[in-house]
Amino acid sequence: MRLSNRISGIVGGGSDGWGVFYKARRMIAEGIPVTELTIGEHDIRTDPVILEAMHKAAMGGHTGYAMVPGTDRLRDAVASRIQARTGVPTTRDNIIITPGGQSALFASHHSVCDEGDTALFIDPYYATYPGSLRGVGAKAVPIKARAERHFQPDAADIAAKANGARSLLINSPNNPTGVVYSRETLEGIAGVCKDHDLWLISDEVYDTQVWQGEHISPRSLPDMAERTLVIGSMSKSHAMTGSRCGWICGSEAAIQKLIDLATSTTYGVAGFVQDAALFALNLGEAHEEKVAAPFRRRRALTLEALAGQNAVRAVPADGAMYVMLDIRATGMSGEEFALALLDQHRIAVMPGESFGAAAAGHIRVAMTIDNTRYVEALKTLISFANEKAK
Amino acid sequence: MRLSNRISGIVGGGSDGWGVFYKARRMIAEGIPVTELTIGEHDIRTDPVILEAMHKAAMGGHTGYAMVPGTDRLRDAVASRIQARTGVPTTRDNIIITPGGQSALFASHHSVCDEGDTALFIDPYYATYPGSLRGVGAKAVPIKARAERHFQPDAADIAAKANGARSLLINSPNNPTGVVYSRETLEGIAGVCKDHDLWLISDEVYDTQVWQGEHISPRSLPDMAERTLVIGSMSKSHAMTGSRCGWICGSEAAIQKLIDLATSTTYGVAGFVQDAALFALNLGEAHEEKVAAPFRRRRALTLEALAGQNAVRAVPADGAMYVMLDIRATGMSGEEFALALLDQHRIAVMPGESFGAAAAGHIRVAMTIDNTRYVEALKTLISFANEKAK
Repeated sequence: MRLSNRISGIVGGGSDGWGVFYKARRMIAEGIPVTELTIGEHDIRTDPVILEAMHKAAMGGHTGYAMVPGTDRLRDAVASRIQARTGVPTTRDNIIITPGGQSALFASHHSVCDEGDTALFIDPYYATYPGSLRGVGAKAVPIKARAERHFQPDAADIAAKANGARSLLINSPNNPTGVVYSRETLEGIAGVCKDHDLWLISDEVYDTQVWQGEHISPRSLPDMAERTLVIGSMSKSHAMTGSRCGWICGSEAAIQKLIDLATSTTYGVAGFVQDAALFALNLGEAHEEKVAAPFRRRRALTLEALAGQNAVRAVPADGAMYVMLDIRATGMSGEEFALALLDQHRIAVMPGESFGAAAAGHIRVAMTIDNTRYVEALKTLISFANEKAK
Repeated sequence: MRLSNRISGIVGGGSDGWGVFYKARRMIAEGIPVTELTIGEHDIRTDPVILEAMHKAAMGGHTGYAMVPGTDRLRDAVASRIQARTGVPTTRDNIIITPGGQSALFASHHSVCDEGDTALFIDPYYATYPGSLRGVGAKAVPIKARAERHFQPDAADIAAKANGARSLLINSPNNPTGVVYSRETLEGIAGVCKDHDLWLISDEVYDTQVWQGEHISPRSLPDMAERTLVIGSMSKSHAMTGSRCGWICGSEAAIQKLIDLATSTTYGVAGFVQDAALFALNLGEAHEEKVAAPFRRRRALTLEALAGQNAVRAVPADGAMYVMLDIRATGMSGEEFALALLDQHRIAVMPGESFGAAAAGHIRVAMTIDNTRYVEALKTLISFANEKAK
């Protein structure tokens, strides 16, 4: 039986750079010890106090259908957090709660693109981006953020592909590069969006993980609130990846239509999960800082370990739980390097090529294991690279 | 900013028969006591033993990303339950776990229809059906199941609209009518699907609520397994509406593509929710029977109350938590009747018109309050109708 074109086209053909990842998984399944620095998941679990709050809500009877847009209290809490962090007036009518950030990403594109419309995104990119855009039936067009610009996208590069496009997807702090977009970068992006009447879909799920500089939400830039859909999530900020709770923040008109869509795509988010998210948000910034602290520390350890050699250079790693390392001095591709590192040292990292052509010759290291093992693995990686670069 | 055509078109224009529902909600919010017989939600909560299992899973650390297709154990449990109930060989590769039945409904249509394709559905219908089909960009075409056929769809009526269509959506046991499709009906439907090369999307979320006759899954009919996508859910069978846990059962090829889609739409379902669902399924048929029992009892009470008068006649109510009542003898439309009943007696029921043109002159009663209040409300409704019918 024939399936729809859009679902058949979600996964692109050819090598996608994920061979190393799956090889590491197979080795682990076979009992071979591998140090995994591949996946963006905390090495801590969701805090038990949050899980106790969830249990209390469930036992208290919050087990029936919740309101499709989200509970009033969670929408209010998300709105006031966004307003406090960005200065943009925000109410519950600007918020819809979604079952995770990925769901928000899909719904946002579904709501602005029709089949065949062009949806722009920045390369390097989070692995699900192109599939998500193709999944809504859009034509997914990458725009390279260049390594020599430290992966800060250039407005001129975007403008060159913006004619007739409907939307642009950005992500700062960025996965996979760890780069935080500068004000200049974001103003350039905002200018292109206004010039070409693009929706800007801004994935800000790493907004609590900024090690240097500041996170600027483009929704706060002049005349951008109406054309920006911000994606947020409890996953990274509160170590609640498995709970699947996120949101979209946008204009009231857009959110109203996104509620119509949610009625037919998800029918809302579990009430007890929303109550857990509300409880977690109410723990305040101290809790967010606690969840972010291990990555802040490991990022410092990374820079320390890299000092005094040139075979491996860090892309300025100002945010998120990753560092992108330039290993071009070894003469190897990211894929070759990652594969050799896995084979010879049983350390798994992601080839830059997994995240698009722009990150070729790089590897992404997820800082998601304990400090001691992390530094040990990093030192092995660095001496491996230095041997190759000789 | 312009939104996509498909999202803008999810909600149809004009009166949709939901005015009575919203009026009842407003009256309740204002403190006016209204007996609500509108919504398909149990009057019990999720069983605490299931919630304890969920808590145990969460505290045990199942709070990170779960596998996108669902946990192996839950997929296995759903597969073996389906195999046991239908006789069709079914493995985990035939199953994807989704965040609720609604999500399964959307994903199924998204996976078989491209934009502009025709998706057929039966009228009367569950409220989200047409919006869900329009939400994927399909042309949603209703096929009337006629009151004089007790709302059993006629294969000839379907065949008349099947040329060039991609899919047909059915739901048995049926919401809103309470009708269970007969073997003859389902064989007729299967024949049309094969003749016209249609996907059959079979919403079977009420499969544990059958009061008379038997539930037949069309996937079990000859040569139908490859072209049928079955939608299931924990919501109705286990009183877990708020947990948002459902599934799609289909061919391995279709499920593989649906996993691609899930990677870009939901990124899976919370692990602790899946563990709770697994625990609930393992409680076995006794638990399902316990959840269904109140509706079985109230259905009997309904037939008892209706005996000996002719102003209100029940459509044969063989399954699900609703009875559809024919009130055409009153000379009123379903909407007029429901509105007058709400105004004069503060009893809220759904006009048949809320569920499509085919149910005009009917009202749907949800059997979702305790027996005593239920019978009392029903008696009031019946004498109200008898006055009007004089």
